[in-house]
Amino acid sequence: MLSIVHTAQKVPRMSVQPILLNGQWTNSTGSKRFQAVNPKTTEPLADEYPISTWEELDQVLHAADQAAKTVADWPAERFAAFLERYADRIDQQSESLVNMAHLETGLPVEPRLKVAELPRTSNQLRQAASAAQEGSWKMATIDKTSNIRSQFGPIGPVAVFGPNNFPFAFNSIAGGDFAAAVAAGNPVIAKGHSAHPGTTRLFAMEALAAASETDMPAGFVQLIYRTSHDDGCKLVSDHRLGAVGYTGSRSAGLTLKQAADAVGKPIYLELSSINPVYFLPQVIQEKAAELAEQFAGSCLMGAGQFCTNPGLVVVLAGPETETFIAQIGEKFRAAPVGTLLGSSVLGSLTSAVKTLTANGAQIVAGGLPGGGAGFCFQNTLLRVSGAKFVANAAALQTEAFGNESLIVVAADEEELLAVTEALEGNLTGCIYSATDGSDDELYDKIAPRLRTKVGRLLNDKMPTGVAVVSSMNHGGPFPATGHPGFTAVGIPAAIHRFAALHSYDAVRPHRLPPALQDKNPTGKMWRLINGQWSQGDVG
Amino acid sequence: MLSIVHTAQKVPRMSVQPILLNGQWTNSTGSKRFQAVNPKTTEPLADEYPISTWEELDQVLHAADQAAKTVADWPAERFAAFLERYADRIDQQSESLVNMAHLETGLPVEPRLKVAELPRTSNQLRQAASAAQEGSWKMATIDKTSNIRSQFGPIGPVAVFGPNNFPFAFNSIAGGDFAAAVAAGNPVIAKGHSAHPGTTRLFAMEALAAASETDMPAGFVQLIYRTSHDDGCKLVSDHRLGAVGYTGSRSAGLTLKQAADAVGKPIYLELSSINPVYFLPQVIQEKAAELAEQFAGSCLMGAGQFCTNPGLVVVLAGPETETFIAQIGEKFRAAPVGTLLGSSVLGSLTSAVKTLTANGAQIVAGGLPGGGAGFCFQNTLLRVSGAKFVANAAALQTEAFGNESLIVVAADEEELLAVTEALEGNLTGCIYSATDGSDDELYDKIAPRLRTKVGRLLNDKMPTGVAVVSSMNHGGPFPATGHPGFTAVGIPAAIHRFAALHSYDAVRPHRLPPALQDKNPTGKMWRLINGQWSQGDVG
Repeated sequence: MLSIVHTAQKVPRMSVQPILLNGQWTNSTGSKRFQAVNPKTTEPLADEYPISTWEELDQVLHAADQAAKTVADWPAERFAAFLERYADRIDQQSESLVNMAHLETGLPVEPRLKVAELPRTSNQLRQAASAAQEGSWKMATIDKTSNIRSQFGPIGPVAVFGPNNFPFAFNSIAGGDFAAAVAAGNPVIAKGHSAHPGTTRLFAMEALAAASETDMPAGFVQLIYRTSHDDGCKLVSDHRLGAVGYTGSRSAGLTLKQAADAVGKPIYLELSSINPVYFLPQVIQEKAAELAEQFAGSCLMGAGQFCTNPGLVVVLAGPETETFIAQIGEKFRAAPVGTLLGSSVLGSLTSAVKTLTANGAQIVAGGLPGGGAGFCFQNTLLRVSGAKFVANAAALQTEAFGNESLIVVAADEEELLAVTEALEGNLTGCIYSATDGSDDELYDKIAPRLRTKVGRLLNDKMPTGVAVVSSMNHGGPFPATGHPGFTAVGIPAAIHRFAALHSYDAVRPHRLPPALQDKNPTGKMWRLINGQWSQGDVG
Repeated sequence: MLSIVHTAQKVPRMSVQPILLNGQWTNSTGSKRFQAVNPKTTEPLADEYPISTWEELDQVLHAADQAAKTVADWPAERFAAFLERYADRIDQQSESLVNMAHLETGLPVEPRLKVAELPRTSNQLRQAASAAQEGSWKMATIDKTSNIRSQFGPIGPVAVFGPNNFPFAFNSIAGGDFAAAVAAGNPVIAKGHSAHPGTTRLFAMEALAAASETDMPAGFVQLIYRTSHDDGCKLVSDHRLGAVGYTGSRSAGLTLKQAADAVGKPIYLELSSINPVYFLPQVIQEKAAELAEQFAGSCLMGAGQFCTNPGLVVVLAGPETETFIAQIGEKFRAAPVGTLLGSSVLGSLTSAVKTLTANGAQIVAGGLPGGGAGFCFQNTLLRVSGAKFVANAAALQTEAFGNESLIVVAADEEELLAVTEALEGNLTGCIYSATDGSDDELYDKIAPRLRTKVGRLLNDKMPTGVAVVSSMNHGGPFPATGHPGFTAVGIPAAIHRFAALHSYDAVRPHRLPPALQDKNPTGKMWRLINGQWSQGDVG
C-alpha cells in the first residue's frame, strides 16, 4: 500500500479541524495544515486538517499512558462493551461515512464502501469484542506444582498508522489494527491517513461517543491527522508507547521501523506485496479464457489498489501461453479504467512502470497515465523473460500499486524455479494447476519454495479476497511485513501483536488477574493447566 | 548476560579444532584462532579454535538452506526422534561434558553442572520433542466455510548465539533456543561462545551422531566457534537465514539486532537485566534476617552470574531498613567469593561498579577485584538514594553482571514510585510484602507499574530459579529482550519464536500439511476448528 503525502500548504484558513486529544476535540497548535483531494475531480475538499506539533504528540502520549494505567486491571468485558457500542454507532452512521469516504477516495459507494467494506469494519470490531470477552486469546497457562501462571496482557498504548486504500476496514481509528489493539486492552493513538481525514474524523466522533457511553478513560482513543517525519519517528520510539501498527508505503514504513527498532519497540508493518500467481501449463490448456477473465477481474478491481493485488504472474513459455497473454491483454484494454486514490498513487504507479520497462519489461497493454476519470492510469500489462527477471530481480519486483501486472515468462522449469527462488516476501502466492492432476509434478516443485516466501498460499483462486476468519494470514515475510509470525487480519491471532507475555510467579491468589485465578472466570476460556488444555477450574 | 571476547591470537598451532560444516568436521580456512581460559587458574587451555571466514559461513548457510528444503514437509516425529536421541546421548556423555564445562567455566561440578544444569538441558530437549510430536503448538486453525486453514510452520534456518553463563542449558547447540528451533522444524547454525568451545564441541559431536542415527540431512546441525563482528552481521542478515536467537552482552546484541532489523529478519535477544526486588516496610519488620539470608544467597549464588540475578533492591528509608542493609552487608562480607566466568566478566564488573559509584552509589561491602580464586571480585553491595537514582536512572541501571547488587533507598512512597517509573525493561521483578497484608496498600501502587516493566512478576521469592514449565516467561520488555511477547524458556511458547504463520487458502486436500487435513493426525492435537478448540476431526 502507498501513503499519500500532500505538500503542506499555507492557505487562507477555512475550517481547520481539531484533533482528538485526551477526550476533547482540541485546536492544534500547529501552523501547517493540509486538505484532502477528491480524486474524481482532482479538486481539494473544503476542510483543512492540522499537522500536529511534537508538543501536541507529547500531550497525546501522556494521556494515552494515563489511560493505559487506568485500564490495566479492567476486566475484558469493559473493552468488549466499548467495541460493541462503537460498532453499533458505525452502522448507524453508515450513510455519512460512505458519502465522505466516496468523496475522499473515489471508491464506489456500492457495493464496495456500503455493502462490503463498512459492514466488514463493524464486523471486525464485533469479532474483536467477542474474542476479548471469551478470553482464550490470552493463552492463560497455569502450572500448579511450580505455582507459576502466565497470560498475554496489554502491551501499552498502540499507535496506528492507517493506509490510503481501505478508508474503513484498515482505518487507523476503526480498522483491524485498532480493533486488535483495543481487544488486548490498549489505548490507541490513531494517525489518520492524509487522503481521507474526513472519514477518519467521522469515525473518531463515533469512537469518542462510544467511549463516553462505556466509561472509557479520556485518553483511551485519540486522533491526530499528520506529523512531520521526525515527529513520527519520535512518536514510535517514545518510552510511553507499547507498540505500533503501520500499513502503508515501504519507504515511510522502513523509516518508522528503524526508529522503533532502535529502542526495541514492537512495530508491525504491512508494506508492499506483488502477490505472485502461477498458471501452470496444463491449466492454461484446460481453461485459458476463464483464467484470463478471473485474473483481469482481480487485477483491475478497485483500480488494483488492494494489498493482495496480483501484480506478478509466472508462466512457462509456449504457444498456448502466448495466446493466454494476448487474451489478458485484450481484457485489460477493454476494461474501464478506474480512478486512483490520489495524485501520489498516480505518481508512484507511473514511476514504477518506468522502472519496470527500464529493466527489461515490455508493454503488452496500457503503459501511460489517463484513460479514465480524475487520477488514473491505463490498465497496464507488462511481460518479461524469466532470465531477465532473475538477473534484475529487485528492480522487477518494484511494486506498481494500482491496475498493473507483470507477466514473467520462464523458458523452462528450471528458469521458473529460479524465478521462484528470486522472489521477495509477499502476503500471498497462488498456484493454478489442472483439475486432472497433470500439473502436479511441477506444482510439487514450486509449492515448497513458494511456501517460504508468502503468508497465504492459494490454489486455483485469486488472492484479492481477504476473509475475516481465524485462519486468515494477512502477513508474510519481509518486505511484505516486518515479521512472518504475525497477521493483521484474523482474530484471535491479530490480537497477539499488541500483547506482552506476563508471567506471575508465586503471586498471591487475590492479586492474580481473573484469567489466572483457580476458577475459570467465564467457564468457557481455554487455558493450559498443568500441560492440558481445559475450560475447567484449577482442581 | 555478558559475552566474553578474547583477543585473537597468532600463536604456534597446537590442535586447531575443525568446525562442523554440512555434516563433516572440516578444517577452517580462517588463519586466526583463539583458546579458552580456565578461570580458576587464569591459564589458557590447550585446544585452539578457529575464527571462521565469510567463505565458510557462506557454505554453512548454503548447507542449512538445503537442509531446510529437505525437511520442509517432514512430519514432526522426525524432529522429535532426533531431539530424543540427542538427549539420550547427552545423558550418556554426562561425565565428559561436566568435566569440560568445569574446566572452561569454573562452575562447580556438583550440584550446579552435574545435578542441575545438565539434566535440565536434556529435559528441555525432551520437552521440545514432546511438544513437536503433540503438535498443539502449531495452533492449527481451520475454517470450513471459507476453506482456509493455517498453522505455524518452520521459519527457516536459525542461527543461535549462546551466552557464557550457562554452558549447557543455553548452549548454542544444545540449549533452549536450539531445542525450540528444532522443534519448529528448522536447521540450526550454532555459534559457540568463546568461553566454552570445548563443551560446545562435545555437544556437537553428540548432535552429529544423533542426527546421523535419525537420518537428518547433513546441514541440519552445524557449528562455528567465532567470526568477525562484520561477518556476524552478514550472517544474521543473510537471505537464507530464517531467524536468530541471541543471548549475551547488550552491545554485541544490539549490533546484531541492527543488522537483522534492517532486512526484517526476526532476531530474539536476551540482553541484560538487573531484576528489581522490592522489600516493603512491614515485611522487613516481620523477618529482616530471613530476607537478608535469602537475598544474599540468591545474589551471590554462582558468583551472581545468572540472567535473573537480583542486581537492584528497592526499599523505603527508615531505621529498620538501615539495620536490614547492614545485615545484608554482613552476609556479603562473610560469604566466600566465587570465581567469575572469565577475565572479561571481571573487567566489565569492575567497570560497572565504577560507573555506579561515579554516579552517586556508595559502597556498603566489597567494591574491589579479588577475594577468591582466579578471576574474582569481592561480593559487592552498593546503596544510593531514590532521588539520585531517578536523576541518574540510565547510569544507575548499568548491569553489573556478577556478585553485586545496588540498594535504592527511597525517602518516601512518592520517591519509590518514581524509582519504579524510571526502571527499564527487565526479565523479572519481585515484591516482598508482609504476610498479614499490612503492606498491601503500597503493593497495589507498585505492582501495576512494575507489571509493565518485567516479564515475570514474583511475590515473596527470589528470581534466580527459572523453572522449565509452560507458564515461565524468561523474557520481558526492551532492553531485557528485543520483544515483550516472546519467552526463551517454556515450551510451547518458546517455539513460536522460530515459526512463521502459514495460511492455506483453498489448497487441495492432499496438498495440506498433516495438521491441517480433515483428520486430526494424532487424535490429540488441539485445533481451532470453525472457532472452537477441538481434538477431533473436521466433521
